[in-house]
Amino acid sequence: MDADEFRKAAHAAIEDIIQYNTNVANNTHPVLPSIKPGYLAPQLPKAAPEHPQSWQDIQPDITSKIIPGLTHWQSPNFMAFFPACATYPSILGEMYSSAFTAPAFNWLCSPACTELETIVLDWLADALHLPTDFRSDSPGGGGGVIQGSASEAIVTIMVAARERYLHRKCDAEGLPNPSPERDARIAGLRSKLVALSSDQAHSSTAKGAIIAGTFHRTVKTSFEDELAVHPDALEATLRKCIADGLEPYYITLSYGTTSTCAQDPLHLLAPVLQNYPDIWIHIDAAYAGTALVCPEYANPPEGASSTTEAMTNGTSPSSQPLQKPTGLLPQGPSILCQVDSFNTNMHKWLLVSFDASLLYVRSRRDLTSALSVSPAYLQNKHTDSGLVTDYRDWQIPLGRRFRALKIWFVVRSYGIEGLRAHIRRTVRVGEHCAKLVTESKDGKELFELVTKPAFGLTCFRIRPDAIPRALVRRSSALDANSTENVETESTMNGSPFGTVEQQDEVAQNQSKQQSLTKMQPTQAAEDLANEFSKQVVETINDQCQLFLTSSSTHGKTFIRVVSGNTNASEEYIEKAFETIVKTTRELFVKVEKEKQT
Amino acid sequence: MDADEFRKAAHAAIEDIIQYNTNVANNTHPVLPSIKPGYLAPQLPKAAPEHPQSWQDIQPDITSKIIPGLTHWQSPNFMAFFPACATYPSILGEMYSSAFTAPAFNWLCSPACTELETIVLDWLADALHLPTDFRSDSPGGGGGVIQGSASEAIVTIMVAARERYLHRKCDAEGLPNPSPERDARIAGLRSKLVALSSDQAHSSTAKGAIIAGTFHRTVKTSFEDELAVHPDALEATLRKCIADGLEPYYITLSYGTTSTCAQDPLHLLAPVLQNYPDIWIHIDAAYAGTALVCPEYANPPEGASSTTEAMTNGTSPSSQPLQKPTGLLPQGPSILCQVDSFNTNMHKWLLVSFDASLLYVRSRRDLTSALSVSPAYLQNKHTDSGLVTDYRDWQIPLGRRFRALKIWFVVRSYGIEGLRAHIRRTVRVGEHCAKLVTESKDGKELFELVTKPAFGLTCFRIRPDAIPRALVRRSSALDANSTENVETESTMNGSPFGTVEQQDEVAQNQSKQQSLTKMQPTQAAEDLANEFSKQVVETINDQCQLFLTSSSTHGKTFIRVVSGNTNASEEYIEKAFETIVKTTRELFVKVEKEKQT
Repeated sequence: MDADEFRKAAHAAIEDIIQYNTNVANNTHPVLPSIKPGYLAPQLPKAAPEHPQSWQDIQPDITSKIIPGLTHWQSPNFMAFFPACATYPSILGEMYSSAFTAPAFNWLCSPACTELETIVLDWLADALHLPTDFRSDSPGGGGGVIQGSASEAIVTIMVAARERYLHRKCDAEGLPNPSPERDARIAGLRSKLVALSSDQAHSSTAKGAIIAGTFHRTVKTSFEDELAVHPDALEATLRKCIADGLEPYYITLSYGTTSTCAQDPLHLLAPVLQNYPDIWIHIDAAYAGTALVCPEYANPPEGASSTTEAMTNGTSPSSQPLQKPTGLLPQGPSILCQVDSFNTNMHKWLLVSFDASLLYVRSRRDLTSALSVSPAYLQNKHTDSGLVTDYRDWQIPLGRRFRALKIWFVVRSYGIEGLRAHIRRTVRVGEHCAKLVTESKDGKELFELVTKPAFGLTCFRIRPDAIPRALVRRSSALDANSTENVETESTMNGSPFGTVEQQDEVAQNQSKQQSLTKMQPTQAAEDLANEFSKQVVETINDQCQLFLTSSSTHGKTFIRVVSGNTNASEEYIEKAFETIVKTTRELFVKVEKEKQT
Repeated sequence: MDADEFRKAAHAAIEDIIQYNTNVANNTHPVLPSIKPGYLAPQLPKAAPEHPQSWQDIQPDITSKIIPGLTHWQSPNFMAFFPACATYPSILGEMYSSAFTAPAFNWLCSPACTELETIVLDWLADALHLPTDFRSDSPGGGGGVIQGSASEAIVTIMVAARERYLHRKCDAEGLPNPSPERDARIAGLRSKLVALSSDQAHSSTAKGAIIAGTFHRTVKTSFEDELAVHPDALEATLRKCIADGLEPYYITLSYGTTSTCAQDPLHLLAPVLQNYPDIWIHIDAAYAGTALVCPEYANPPEGASSTTEAMTNGTSPSSQPLQKPTGLLPQGPSILCQVDSFNTNMHKWLLVSFDASLLYVRSRRDLTSALSVSPAYLQNKHTDSGLVTDYRDWQIPLGRRFRALKIWFVVRSYGIEGLRAHIRRTVRVGEHCAKLVTESKDGKELFELVTKPAFGLTCFRIRPDAIPRALVRRSSALDANSTENVETESTMNGSPFGTVEQQDEVAQNQSKQQSLTKMQPTQAAEDLANEFSKQVVETINDQCQLFLTSSSTHGKTFIRVVSGNTNASEEYIEKAFETIVKTTRELFVKVEKEKQT
């Protein structure tokens, strides 16, 4: 393809992209593709073509074969997971990045790539109101780096945390480095390390622990505390780990969990963690963290920290739920000075297309000490000078794309005020959704919120008392027969290294078993509310017009509605709510009919 | 930015890209930027703009501020590292990918993204002549996945290898799963695991071992064996590991190492590894693997496997060097049936812009068993059906970009014959370079190959006997004084868990020390040849017109010249060679002058 052919092809591609974006915004394509698994293979040749094909041969296949198989994340009817915004300035960034291709693993491999990254990460640290500790010019040697995803950010941090813990411990014990004693001690410690997170944390912490080769235990949360970590639960988990001979080295605290946007109250948890100074504290703010661009999130209004007082004055805190959870940062982001690292994804809510996960650390040396490997072919005088940043030592891969460009273009095209406007507008759309659930006639009759709406996410389920009584009675009879299975499951785990989660599961199953044997209609209604909430989501997704996700925790299954993408609007939320109401009522009728036959 | 603004901006961006590509091809920009570390920050505002900026404000900064800080990997004078090709069809792929943005972690998140990936990876498995075991429809359940880089591919595989090893071992010992005994056994084994690779393997294996939390030991190679792993050295390393109480679980064998494109002879190593059936064998063919698209690499001519006979008939193989190393695949790629996984990067030599690393496994279950974590919000009926692939369980990150598009476009635009033509043309350019070293008057006088040229890579250094005798005599006197430092270093490591590499280093330092105390002029000339070879590269790079890398191993420092990119040509190689000759002669003169003053 020569320059002229490229120009022609690229112009045509631009028209495709504009057309696609317009169609998606106008809801011309159903949000989910109506194809079956394996739809594509029969439409393509069995083997790669031997001879070159022209763009005229290739391009039509995008419209005829690829677009019909896409899930449209920019659709106003995409309300699943979290959003993944795509914007025009971001596409321009990827165009240039691809043209300037360089696996820029060190400064010399493309200085602009490294330097622009440092600059825009500092811009964003300020724009997000993060403490200056996270800036590249901070006296403590902090800094930011673009990772591909929050999962990558978290596993990178966990490896750094693991190595820091092992070496701090050996240093404290006065073991020479290197020495056989130190190696033996590290080998012994390694098999006892445990990473912590709430039972609500994103699966990336569990996966990170697998990759880092350590245990993972979860701190149990409850709906009473809005699924945020209670300081007593944290303390109890830490004590249990230590009693079991484990060594806690790392904790993920969440600013906006995936299921419900729960926020672990750092101001209440930090005092607990101060007694364990070698534990690395990481804040996973993958989705919600970008809201910190708005002062109302970064510096919440006076009085929002009342929970602090309630909690710290209590004599028996374990009996006190976090009645008014105030989120991670009720005292403003200055509380983040007490954490080691923080990540948030611009590619979710902040208008940069995937991938652009921002990771900030207070000490970049913690990363480079763990991850730097310097063979001869990667050494150069710039690296040796200490004047440049070699981001390869801040991440798992060696090579890296020029992702700072798209962030630069987006931030400049929107301005910080434009980013704020996007967050605020979509939060309002989310609040509209919550209002429909709590204030509309249908909403009040059929649904209940499971947690307080936050960051444009509304979590609700079918009210147990909204389920037709005939269905509840029948289900109650059915469930009583299923006790045996539950019993079998409850004997599954007896390991001393079993996670707290697993132990909780055992306890839950036992209590479930008890409740089933003396089955109450209330429990049966609860179970049906959960089951029907899930079925409503599946039925809606099967129709491909609206994409929702359900989630399930601590005995409640619920519907999640997310409103963060650029095309989200009150109008589409209202239509979505109508669909949810209609589908719920139809499900009741359908199940009643099935019961009668 | 609305559609009309985007159209205008994107058309302008396309002209920028065409202009950039044309300039780079015509060598208008020096390959290396002549800027100093920190060049960019003073040119940009301290903070992100509060208000939106138009594309007219943004675009000029690309030409004025970014391009001057780029290293031009497409320049015909880029002969460093390995190439990173950027092509027009690839840029088109990134444009669409960015527009269709979706963190497609499972099938439902964008079925086309998953299905096209499976299809093009199968196309490539065939095009690269890989065994059918690696195809997604193989009876053994193999398959391919696109990773961001070889480093990511390797650490992913190492984690899968580690978990497979631990569980196989426990299964073999009859430990119930789960059980406290099993957990305890795994904890004990975990701290003894050791990954292996040649001392020439890319640093990604060492880094992967850090991330996976295991030891790493290297098999020592020698120039006598063209830096390929000798089966006896492998056997010796394995035995040493076991004698030290370690558990070898994984080995990287290389098809084209980074320093010299050495190829570990799998046909000779597989018989050794057959006695250790639980070791995961991974082939890192990051750069050279894409040459398998050419039948002459995939199925080398008759007789090429003569080394096999020489080696296997020998009574005392340890005394027999691999006299005619025939590379990894002298019996064709069918030998790859004996390995567990294979990776090669299209983003290096095969015309797809970064990132596009192809990873193939013989058993995808090995990956998913290790890496699958399934919280409620990621479950759906398609995943449960088993009919779809969820690539999130084949990799470290959760989300993933639609990278199959650019591969699809490139393969179709070039056709397999076009890919082959690119490999063959650039290999010829490389052979031209090797000829200049070995056959030209200057080459014969000044340089010597350190290894056989391969895959367009020529490795050579200044001949020790080409160094002016006056310089050698002076250096000899200087070097005799440096013995003390060497001695200090040699006492650095005494750990039983020290790597074989470290132990070798001790031995090397001891022998170096001996040779220094009875310093011969020959050794001084060797040292100068190394030092000058490195200085020649640094001097050339400082001038920014030509970008080379030096490398260093087993006492030789050498110049690497790589000819894989789309703009590489005999003409530029000749100019580069002239520059290397001229710089070498100038260096001799300069050092002689310095000596006289």
